[in-house]
Amino acid sequence: MTALRLIPLGGLGEVGMNCLAVEYGDSIVLIDCGLLFPDESMLGIDLVLPDWSYLRKRRTAVKAVFLTHGHEDHVGALPFFLKEFPGVPVYGTKLTLALSAGRLEEHGVGADLRPVVPRERVDVGPFGVSFFHVAHSIADGAGLVLETPEGTILHTGDFKFDQTPVDGQPSDYGALAAIGERGVLCLLSDSTNVERPGVTESEKTVGPALARIFRQAPGRIVLATFASHIHRVQQVLDVAARFERRVALVGRSMVQNVKIASDLGYLTVPPGCLLDLDDLLALPHEEQVVLCTGSQGEPMSALALMAFDNHKQIKIERGDTVILSARVIPGNERAISSITNQLFRKGADVIQGRASGVHVSGHAAQEELRLMLNLVKPKHFIPIHGESRHLVRHRRLAIETGVPPERAFLVHDGDVVSFEGGVGRVAERVEAGRVFVDGKGVGDVERLVLRDRRHLAEDGIVVAVVGVNRQTGEIVSGPTVLAQGVASDEVMAAGTLMEGARADIRQTVAAAAPEVRTDVRELEIEVRKGLRRYFRNTLDRRPVIIAVVMEL
Amino acid sequence: MTALRLIPLGGLGEVGMNCLAVEYGDSIVLIDCGLLFPDESMLGIDLVLPDWSYLRKRRTAVKAVFLTHGHEDHVGALPFFLKEFPGVPVYGTKLTLALSAGRLEEHGVGADLRPVVPRERVDVGPFGVSFFHVAHSIADGAGLVLETPEGTILHTGDFKFDQTPVDGQPSDYGALAAIGERGVLCLLSDSTNVERPGVTESEKTVGPALARIFRQAPGRIVLATFASHIHRVQQVLDVAARFERRVALVGRSMVQNVKIASDLGYLTVPPGCLLDLDDLLALPHEEQVVLCTGSQGEPMSALALMAFDNHKQIKIERGDTVILSARVIPGNERAISSITNQLFRKGADVIQGRASGVHVSGHAAQEELRLMLNLVKPKHFIPIHGESRHLVRHRRLAIETGVPPERAFLVHDGDVVSFEGGVGRVAERVEAGRVFVDGKGVGDVERLVLRDRRHLAEDGIVVAVVGVNRQTGEIVSGPTVLAQGVASDEVMAAGTLMEGARADIRQTVAAAAPEVRTDVRELEIEVRKGLRRYFRNTLDRRPVIIAVVMEL
Repeated sequence: MTALRLIPLGGLGEVGMNCLAVEYGDSIVLIDCGLLFPDESMLGIDLVLPDWSYLRKRRTAVKAVFLTHGHEDHVGALPFFLKEFPGVPVYGTKLTLALSAGRLEEHGVGADLRPVVPRERVDVGPFGVSFFHVAHSIADGAGLVLETPEGTILHTGDFKFDQTPVDGQPSDYGALAAIGERGVLCLLSDSTNVERPGVTESEKTVGPALARIFRQAPGRIVLATFASHIHRVQQVLDVAARFERRVALVGRSMVQNVKIASDLGYLTVPPGCLLDLDDLLALPHEEQVVLCTGSQGEPMSALALMAFDNHKQIKIERGDTVILSARVIPGNERAISSITNQLFRKGADVIQGRASGVHVSGHAAQEELRLMLNLVKPKHFIPIHGESRHLVRHRRLAIETGVPPERAFLVHDGDVVSFEGGVGRVAERVEAGRVFVDGKGVGDVERLVLRDRRHLAEDGIVVAVVGVNRQTGEIVSGPTVLAQGVASDEVMAAGTLMEGARADIRQTVAAAAPEVRTDVRELEIEVRKGLRRYFRNTLDRRPVIIAVVMEL
Repeated sequence: MTALRLIPLGGLGEVGMNCLAVEYGDSIVLIDCGLLFPDESMLGIDLVLPDWSYLRKRRTAVKAVFLTHGHEDHVGALPFFLKEFPGVPVYGTKLTLALSAGRLEEHGVGADLRPVVPRERVDVGPFGVSFFHVAHSIADGAGLVLETPEGTILHTGDFKFDQTPVDGQPSDYGALAAIGERGVLCLLSDSTNVERPGVTESEKTVGPALARIFRQAPGRIVLATFASHIHRVQQVLDVAARFERRVALVGRSMVQNVKIASDLGYLTVPPGCLLDLDDLLALPHEEQVVLCTGSQGEPMSALALMAFDNHKQIKIERGDTVILSARVIPGNERAISSITNQLFRKGADVIQGRASGVHVSGHAAQEELRLMLNLVKPKHFIPIHGESRHLVRHRRLAIETGVPPERAFLVHDGDVVSFEGGVGRVAERVEAGRVFVDGKGVGDVERLVLRDRRHLAEDGIVVAVVGVNRQTGEIVSGPTVLAQGVASDEVMAAGTLMEGARADIRQTVAAAAPEVRTDVRELEIEVRKGLRRYFRNTLDRRPVIIAVVMEL
């Protein structure tokens, strides 16, 4: 008997990326195709992708990708995916696809993008798929309903139940209730804010909070937010217009996304509101708003450049007000903190944090998660989009709401949840998880390489080269010793340290037994041992040591 | 005319360490002597110390060190200081000195430790110094009053106005008010919690919060907190005794500090409450409490070892309750998060965060800072103990409370605040800030070395060695190419990558102009250039490249 299988391919149980495979017979569809930006421990890594090993084995089964919304952790891996799986059609709402198209173009990857309208049905193999609108911190977000031979799967996407969303479109209660009435085999629901009691504030509360600040700000306003947060941008533009300020967009993605969103009608720019930066800076300070990227402290972002006096056009001055209209993504605390400290030193006022009201979350809190469960009344439940602790808590919350414990699954990357005859179980495991991208290499940098890089980073490296006579084993060239990242330029220039290292090598070679002296590999080991001891004794450091003995 | 000078030597305006020099004529006393633990960006650094360059120039002037309390960021640099400035007497309360003595012993450094009792006066050169008791997240905390020829300096230390402290001793309102009545030239006050409105919760609120958890916990309780937080430990022991659980201490500093504090009478262990770990683990789970270190996610701490199944004696199981009774020090978010996720995966319940009540801060919030200002009524004000944004906000709060703006100073490391004729001003700057300790080296690893280490960490290193004939410039040995942290073992083993690199070197040497071929330095530059291009083209990576050409 054919089973329906749900397989998270990357990012479940840890921060980041989303990619879920849904399989029935010889058909697989993907829900989302996101990437993760590396943290500080992933030395030299550019990006992290989901692991598609499972799909590679079932290449012809992969029929379609469905995107819930345009955030990088949901669509960012698409160019990499389509390079490997060309021609697979990609479904999403209009704005989601427009944002993805920009990324695909940058990578020079063609795609079969198929815009859908919520509540419309698309048939792909055994799956009947329809989108339903949800409110989230990006416009045009959606959840998914998959009708399958085993029953209906409901995937919330990232959502909140905002009763007064900026675009006037709350999450689609009607669709959810109707689907719930018909019966849902399994609900997969966003766990991000499961630790927050109550209800997440409406996006519309941000406008008045901004207005209070705009009313009092004595000079220029610099506001940093996520470039994809179209409704936030809308509110900034509206408040600026109300207080007769003009706005310049700074940061490539900000300019690009505002253009896409206003072209497609998701954003209404008040007439005359937007100016080029040069024109804006010619106005009196109290008429200026700089709307920029960099809310996460990214070192090359507009905000960081301004804070550290590296921005070509904008200098932060006493009297400026800087608003960080964004949450702090875990791991970015220190980068953001160093920027706000710098801004304070320059005399700017910095407004940030939950109490200020300049940011609200885009994810449902506990009461909304309960409401989702009660609307959908699922037979099974899988918490998604969260770290392990969120998944555990969300599973508990679902059980409190009435899902039987044996039907509320706690799954991580690679766990296969299989449904047969209307009953689900965690069946087996497949290869899944994180794949590192470094330069051109996708997947060739692994934990071992990162461990080497970490070691290099800890105490630097010493390279020793010596030429020995093939017959006598005597030194005929060198020893040359180079070091990097080991000690300061002054210490190196003084010469004693490196002269000691050379003496150590000479002594090792002289003291080596004849059979060692004429075996270069053995001699290299001895030289390395000697130097390791030498640097431990002199500096108490453990640099990586590379010894090369050349036979001449 | 002689001036009174206040000089922060390290840590003001950034996170961490505390060390303030107070100078009058040929006398200098230090207030606190703390260190900072490195963050992830400080590759291979063991510790960070204040910069004592200024003191080195005025060695004989250094008369004494006064310690406000026993936290590492206030006393941790003492062993390093006393190695350089032996014999300088160190004053502090009994517990503060006892905790410092442990550190000094580990470093094998002798010290002239002079215990003081709050409100007692010590005369050092032109300074009359007395301590006053303050409540803080460590027992026996104190602030300092320095009577100087220019007037009275009041330094709060780290404090809160806890109305119901665990030891029954609130911060010394009487002393503060009396000093305020006599007139204070300058107040230096703790800025940590200036962003928090209201009043910090009393330490005594933690006990009932713990009791609620202990009452319900179905199995073992593991509680992690700071080993120096004697009053927290007291409450854990008391609650454990109340619910008829026994406690084992895990973690070296936990065992040590509990011994010191109970020997000195700062901690009362309920009879029979403490057990050795082995004995504890022989009891039924519901009678066990493991009190341990590791609340900051330190990888070798007891808690981390338990979470990742590396602890020899304790295995975390379903039904265990883990309590993180500590704040998250900024920068440790990810480490802690990875541990709590791991604990959740093992089926433990994890209790943490402000809402749970299992931790309260040891620092004064806004209303308490205002009260301090109103008790002391200082003529001048200097915010201390905070990042720039805290100092800026605290200065504003002081101005709101009545300190004239021109007498509220915003100073960072090395800024000298000078008082003459009762008037203070920011006079000049001296060398101060951070000194990195790496192994035996104090101060020899600087930003440049860290930059090298960062580069090594990003893409690894390639070492190329080739021997050429001195006359002809032809290759007579090698080329040998080694790489570390560049690509995975499989890629390296395949050989193509490194064979390509060797070919690249051969080509570079062959193509070099005759004058380059016989100049080893020139040839090394060419080889490096070639390899840089080669790895960029093949892998799009930029490893550090070390080329050694040996003349033979």
